[in-house]
Amino acid sequence: MNILFVGDVVGSMGREMVKEYLPKLKNHFRPHITIVNGENSAGGRGITESIYKQLLEAGANAVTLGNHAWDNKAIFDFVDTAKYMIRPANFPEAPGSGMVFLRLNDLEVAVINLQGRTFMPPLDCPFKKAEELIEIAKARTNIIFVDFHAEATSEKQAMGWFLDGKATAVIGTHTHVQTADERILPAGTAYLTDVGMTGPYDEILGMDKHAVLYRFQTSLPARFEVPKTGRKQLSACLIQVNKETGKARSIERIMINDDRPFFKD
Amino acid sequence: MNILFVGDVVGSMGREMVKEYLPKLKNHFRPHITIVNGENSAGGRGITESIYKQLLEAGANAVTLGNHAWDNKAIFDFVDTAKYMIRPANFPEAPGSGMVFLRLNDLEVAVINLQGRTFMPPLDCPFKKAEELIEIAKARTNIIFVDFHAEATSEKQAMGWFLDGKATAVIGTHTHVQTADERILPAGTAYLTDVGMTGPYDEILGMDKHAVLYRFQTSLPARFEVPKTGRKQLSACLIQVNKETGKARSIERIMINDDRPFFKD
Amino acid sequence: MNILFVGDVVGSMGREMVKEYLPKLKNHFRPHITIVNGENSAGGRGITESIYKQLLEAGANAVTLGNHAWDNKAIFDFVDTAKYMIRPANFPEAPGSGMVFLRLNDLEVAVINLQGRTFMPPLDCPFKKAEELIEIAKARTNIIFVDFHAEATSEKQAMGWFLDGKATAVIGTHTHVQTADERILPAGTAYLTDVGMTGPYDEILGMDKHAVLYRFQTSLPARFEVPKTGRKQLSACLIQVNKETGKARSIERIMINDDRPFFKD
Amino acid sequence: MNILFVGDVVGSMGREMVKEYLPKLKNHFRPHITIVNGENSAGGRGITESIYKQLLEAGANAVTLGNHAWDNKAIFDFVDTAKYMIRPANFPEAPGSGMVFLRLNDLEVAVINLQGRTFMPPLDCPFKKAEELIEIAKARTNIIFVDFHAEATSEKQAMGWFLDGKATAVIGTHTHVQTADERILPAGTAYLTDVGMTGPYDEILGMDKHAVLYRFQTSLPARFEVPKTGRKQLSACLIQVNKETGKARSIERIMINDDRPFFKD
Ligand SMILES: [Fe+2]
Ligand SMILES: [Fe+2]
Ligand SMILES: [Fe+2]
Ligand SMILES: [Fe+2]
Ligand SMILES: [Fe+2]
Ligand SMILES: [Fe+2]
Ligand SMILES: [Fe+2]
Ligand SMILES: [Fe+2]
Repeated sequence: MNILFVGDVVGSMGREMVKEYLPKLKNHFRPHITIVNGENSAGGRGITESIYKQLLEAGANAVTLGNHAWDNKAIFDFVDTAKYMIRPANFPEAPGSGMVFLRLNDLEVAVINLQGRTFMPPLDCPFKKAEELIEIAKARTNIIFVDFHAEATSEKQAMGWFLDGKATAVIGTHTHVQTADERILPAGTAYLTDVGMTGPYDEILGMDKHAVLYRFQTSLPARFEVPKTGRKQLSACLIQVNKETGKARSIERIMINDDRPFFKD
Repeated sequence: MNILFVGDVVGSMGREMVKEYLPKLKNHFRPHITIVNGENSAGGRGITESIYKQLLEAGANAVTLGNHAWDNKAIFDFVDTAKYMIRPANFPEAPGSGMVFLRLNDLEVAVINLQGRTFMPPLDCPFKKAEELIEIAKARTNIIFVDFHAEATSEKQAMGWFLDGKATAVIGTHTHVQTADERILPAGTAYLTDVGMTGPYDEILGMDKHAVLYRFQTSLPARFEVPKTGRKQLSACLIQVNKETGKARSIERIMINDDRPFFKD
Repeated sequence: MNILFVGDVVGSMGREMVKEYLPKLKNHFRPHITIVNGENSAGGRGITESIYKQLLEAGANAVTLGNHAWDNKAIFDFVDTAKYMIRPANFPEAPGSGMVFLRLNDLEVAVINLQGRTFMPPLDCPFKKAEELIEIAKARTNIIFVDFHAEATSEKQAMGWFLDGKATAVIGTHTHVQTADERILPAGTAYLTDVGMTGPYDEILGMDKHAVLYRFQTSLPARFEVPKTGRKQLSACLIQVNKETGKARSIERIMINDDRPFFKD
Repeated sequence: MNILFVGDVVGSMGREMVKEYLPKLKNHFRPHITIVNGENSAGGRGITESIYKQLLEAGANAVTLGNHAWDNKAIFDFVDTAKYMIRPANFPEAPGSGMVFLRLNDLEVAVINLQGRTFMPPLDCPFKKAEELIEIAKARTNIIFVDFHAEATSEKQAMGWFLDGKATAVIGTHTHVQTADERILPAGTAYLTDVGMTGPYDEILGMDKHAVLYRFQTSLPARFEVPKTGRKQLSACLIQVNKETGKARSIERIMINDDRPFFKD
């Protein structure tokens, strides 16, 4: 049983990559479940109902979010009814869900979204919340996917070890740079510090590099926009799962860009 | 002309990996210059003169540092005389050097260490300092290696684009997790957001995972120690350089651990 | 019914001020309850059992703490048995108590310590925790004193307004500088953003000013010590309480130093 | 020779207080120079040319700014021509001036604005910049007023001690809460950690308290608006200066609100 996870989709270029490559990735990897992080899918800031639906139509079974979930106020209009959208579970009192169950024939997959606190705003403890949600999930399924949206590598590795043997996979998002440390932890959890970003390839985290650089050099405000044209990339990973135990069998990183073209079949 | 760069060496396990694998890596990759980040080489915190010398004996031509440079007060006794040790250049008034020139037959290689400011303590602007140092270096050589010790992926990518075409390589350190985004930027600079860590493989950034996890869960103080036994890893990268132009020809990531054994020859 | 609250006692000079002036303040203001923040009482970092007892002997009925509570490991030996010591209640799982009841003839006073999260490490939500504790306290008494140990003026004012009409007083600590905004909020809660510090008068927050300044100018490490000699100050406030309703009648700031000598009677 | 300094004017209620009380304060205190911090004068975020002119017409001789200087893009249209507006001098490359000289008969007063870095974005070192500017200023005048716009009490006290004997006054802004620690430092510099805010009296730092509290409780975004009606306050201080030496003779805090009405004449 395979899970495909696509990292932070940024703006229209990110959505174009999803539309173009998700069918090819599905054709090649045959995932049973596809999850896409969409926190930056609307112009780099949040998500709209129309984009959420586009992502589902493009092949996502669930859309996870992160700290940018709330940037586009449109989310408050549909977050409560979007059955396959998951916002960070450790917001103390937010609309929407922090865990969603996906049905797959006779199987269920729990998808959890959590947000870190190091170098990020205060939230409820993601470790405690993870424990609570996994206890709930375990009553229904052993297959539990966690998107841990966090900045600090220490907090992300800590979550990996904390959930080793409890979750099927703990995959990081938020830094927009794919890390190379994919592994199966000793008790069977697939771990990757960050799956990386899907969108512009020649910018900074997907945002116009001139604006970002200007801000670093001047500390003056600069409006960060997602460019609409240029070279693109897609970042993802594939996890093979033992569907009986919920343990991960393997994890493979996927990165598609001009330097790493996708020629898999 | 090849440069081998080994990421943050953590404690005795990190030093053991350097001693064991540096000869093998040199044998295989034939680097002309080997640089090692040693900011955590003394028990995870700073460096001592004896360890600095061990790293040189093990094959390093230069030792870069970072925010932990000053953790072990011993550094103040030898930083001014350690000819091949480079501390972050953008400390406003620190002993030691932020740029060192290595002689290699008729060639020179400038090695620069800079520290980021996002999610880190205030320092002089690393972008401005980079510009100043590169102007100085260019008078002597086109081969300029930059270890950018920083937390935020945005600041690191910004430095990569800022120095594209000016530096031979901009390689990140500090997060202790190797990223998978190695590339040659359009104007010829080799870039990698983080080269990763050299030390314990089954801990959190090289520190005892139980202590780190305890702190995340309780916010109570916990003494972070580097374990002395267990599985180990080494993280590095190899850059091939056109010695005339100083442009990078290629960049290759290197990670050695139980899941990625080194069988190269 | 009067409550006297003395702000962060720093090192031996802070303790000397408590010993010298607490009797005079008591003689003048006739407080029924005296509370002292002792998070920096042991050399600026934490508290020891012996110092805790000294503070009680000097006239404190209760000792509150803050983020420095755990700096001196000695606390773990007596925090669970120190009946009149209160550590921040919103640590998720710490030894000791976050609320203590003081008996005063037929009255009870609840003393609560909470810690902020803005510019401070992650903790459980202080607002939610305040609500929970006040509900518990209200079953026993209307007189509820809150020491809110926090950095940001916004978070402290937010707590004041949040607890207006629920707590008798919300008094800030931690910044070590007394603010001049004492007031009775519309629903009857005495509020002061920060009560200020008790200790050296000619240093920076009570720490050796040369070391602090050196760190600001160089970003290099500097050992912060509390000077043992020099001019001293004491910072405090007095709250007059309607003992039936628990509402505050008045709040008065107290600051004693060479520029503001104490000549009250 | 007297200097009147009015702290962060927030929105229309702040401007109303300036218009109403500046004439009364001038009548009573007879300041020779009046300086107003206007970083929040346009709806809480930045300043416009029209508001800048209003503040001058209301009696300000100079308008200082802070981190919010750039919030209203309108500033970029007039910052270079506004002769009496001072933005933080330690922005590395910003339009406008960080020091302005005010002429007063045969005297000159240098007005400097600096911004802190602790808990704030990276900037050039405010201590080094202070030193540079004061050296320039000293060639023309001994009367040097510094508005140090900073968050941390430690950084502000450090600046006070750093400039003691060099500047006439180091007065803090930014936290919007007046501190009670006004004093003349040993070498003759008037010091106050924060002068406080001018605007709504019953809100949080001048912003709608419900929105701020909502954000603290939920970590969800909330649009912070400055209320337009309600009770108001003005925060200021008066410094008496020896015009020959530039040393401060005295510093007096001023706070006007319903609890502290202004009846001075
Ligand atoms: Fe993202
Ligand atoms: Fe994010
Ligand atoms: Fe490191
Ligand atoms: Fe580091
Ligand atoms: Fe304190
Ligand atoms: Fe504190
Ligand atoms: Fe302000
Ligand atoms: Fe400000």
